[in-house]
Amino acid sequence: MPNVHCVVLAGGSGTRFWPASRRLMPKQLLPLAGRADEPLIAATLRRIEPLVPPERVWISTGTRLVDATAAALPRVPRAHLLAEPVARNTAPCIGWAAATIARTDPDAIVAVLPADHFIGDEPGFRDVLERALRAAEDGWLTTIGIVPTRPETGYGYIEVGDRVGEGVHAVARFVEKPSREKAEAFVAGGRHLWNAGMFFFRASVMRDAIAEHMPALATGLARIEEAAARGDEARALAEVFPTLPSISIDHGVMEKAERIAVVPGSFGWNDVGSWQVTWEMSERDAQGNALPEGTIAIDAKNNLVRDLSPGAARKRWALVGVSDLVIVETDDAVLVIPRERAQDVRAVIDALTARGETDRL
Amino acid sequence: MPNVHCVVLAGGSGTRFWPASRRLMPKQLLPLAGRADEPLIAATLRRIEPLVPPERVWISTGTRLVDATAAALPRVPRAHLLAEPVARNTAPCIGWAAATIARTDPDAIVAVLPADHFIGDEPGFRDVLERALRAAEDGWLTTIGIVPTRPETGYGYIEVGDRVGEGVHAVARFVEKPSREKAEAFVAGGRHLWNAGMFFFRASVMRDAIAEHMPALATGLARIEEAAARGDEARALAEVFPTLPSISIDHGVMEKAERIAVVPGSFGWNDVGSWQVTWEMSERDAQGNALPEGTIAIDAKNNLVRDLSPGAARKRWALVGVSDLVIVETDDAVLVIPRERAQDVRAVIDALTARGETDRL
Repeated sequence: MPNVHCVVLAGGSGTRFWPASRRLMPKQLLPLAGRADEPLIAATLRRIEPLVPPERVWISTGTRLVDATAAALPRVPRAHLLAEPVARNTAPCIGWAAATIARTDPDAIVAVLPADHFIGDEPGFRDVLERALRAAEDGWLTTIGIVPTRPETGYGYIEVGDRVGEGVHAVARFVEKPSREKAEAFVAGGRHLWNAGMFFFRASVMRDAIAEHMPALATGLARIEEAAARGDEARALAEVFPTLPSISIDHGVMEKAERIAVVPGSFGWNDVGSWQVTWEMSERDAQGNALPEGTIAIDAKNNLVRDLSPGAARKRWALVGVSDLVIVETDDAVLVIPRERAQDVRAVIDALTARGETDRL
Repeated sequence: MPNVHCVVLAGGSGTRFWPASRRLMPKQLLPLAGRADEPLIAATLRRIEPLVPPERVWISTGTRLVDATAAALPRVPRAHLLAEPVARNTAPCIGWAAATIARTDPDAIVAVLPADHFIGDEPGFRDVLERALRAAEDGWLTTIGIVPTRPETGYGYIEVGDRVGEGVHAVARFVEKPSREKAEAFVAGGRHLWNAGMFFFRASVMRDAIAEHMPALATGLARIEEAAARGDEARALAEVFPTLPSISIDHGVMEKAERIAVVPGSFGWNDVGSWQVTWEMSERDAQGNALPEGTIAIDAKNNLVRDLSPGAARKRWALVGVSDLVIVETDDAVLVIPRERAQDVRAVIDALTARGETDRL
């Protein structure tokens, strides 16, 4: 098999983990699930390291996040941090990354993975990954579809088509986020999978697909390549990137191209969408609490406390008679919210925005 | 009227306001009710200042609290901080304070007030105080009795006897903390008042009463006085104080002496017994919350948040969908507890003690 490179999508600036996540410290740079000292993006790299070493990892991120991202990933070459001057959704950044990789490795197979997901069964995940990479080697634009465990209305779905190989199917169609009724039918029917935003392809196949389905993007990428050949990539990026179409790779390429494959998988995947999920993914005591070390908990059940403030190590938390709470403290903010309302942290973001307190966003 | 001196009892080391209150920073040194920047003891002095200026105020406290107490009361002469080497309840400290005052002002009238209570109606309180001081001038050992507003079982009561002057009654008897049934009968009967631990007397009258009813204390105080006359008070205190009987002034003197008077009063008195009371006494927003300035509160009701940590000024609290909580943060601890369970902070103290975490007590 040709070399496999991995492009990690790490441009997100999620607000659902405020006050831990900030514009300059988004979700993927925080240890929100799994090991308490491992940012989600570091876990993403560790998981794939048996298949892709750090020197073939590329990070797609935004200019403002480059330093913090590099600090979290000391083993990735600094030149592999691909900083978009402006965010243009996933098609331009994946196209640019694929072109960049192909400069030195034209036969490369590329795996595109989100930086900020949790995976419980890592060997199982790598098995599915290997299957997807083999399909990509065979020329398929390949994705992984997660076998749904609930009628989730927050994700897109992939309808499975004919079998085209060992554990690999053609994609019948991509389906937008469904209604509750449709989602229930999808789960019951067994022919729909969650679209988890993972993609696998030969660099040359993606280049050709972009040329066919997104000619404006192809033209822009060609300008960047020419400038790069002259050693003038930075200026071309700043000029060209803002003009590229802001479209997802799903809409721009996957839904239109031929030979789209999906590998179904079940490996304890979770997109770590809220503090509620952090609680679910955390180690918990017998009363269901995930608390800082040494906390005194009396008649306290199913709480999550994350103390990310500088003084956390010397601080003693004491919870008496409270249940199902999320409490998150940082240097400059404290959030107190019931677990079941964790999504409503957006209302706090809105209030901060309305007040102009942008330094806390 | 002869000079009025005030002895403020400030030896308490309450644990009910953990984590704000500590062994070295007890309740009376904290702003737990009323003005957010005024420790309870400072409010006590401010309230009586129209009647007793700071240069005639004396503070009875423990050796370990002298520095912090002096810092809270810069206008009280340092020599007026009477530091007990060991705590021996109120009879020895009141006897010692009265003797000390009498050295330079033998005709003094002495008012003894707890340092750590809240009073809502300050002019009304001063009216009652003046009445009590006049009774003291007439030779009565006088106390103030609070007209009860509920069948409280946590206080001692005073049964009112015959009227002996304008708003002044003889005390029929002192009653220990009653059962619930008795307390209800007291409130319904209208002849019982709460014992709030305030006492008023001529220094000479108290001296004579101690001589008659607590001869061992009188002997010990005489030894201290003799040493003080030789300029050797400190050593005498260290030797004598631990040998004095550890008895309250109520048990040791008031319940035995003749000519005991009580002045009934209603002036918004509160002994600030728990965080629940702090919430009741605090300024609250339309949703019943008492929160740090700038807090974002969404669907949040009747909460108390006190941030006493060094970073409080730059910290933004956000409460979403939580009600009736008390949250208190300090430099090294955070307490989260429902308001109605505020008394259960004792369980946290017990846990810290069991763990040997005495640095947090």
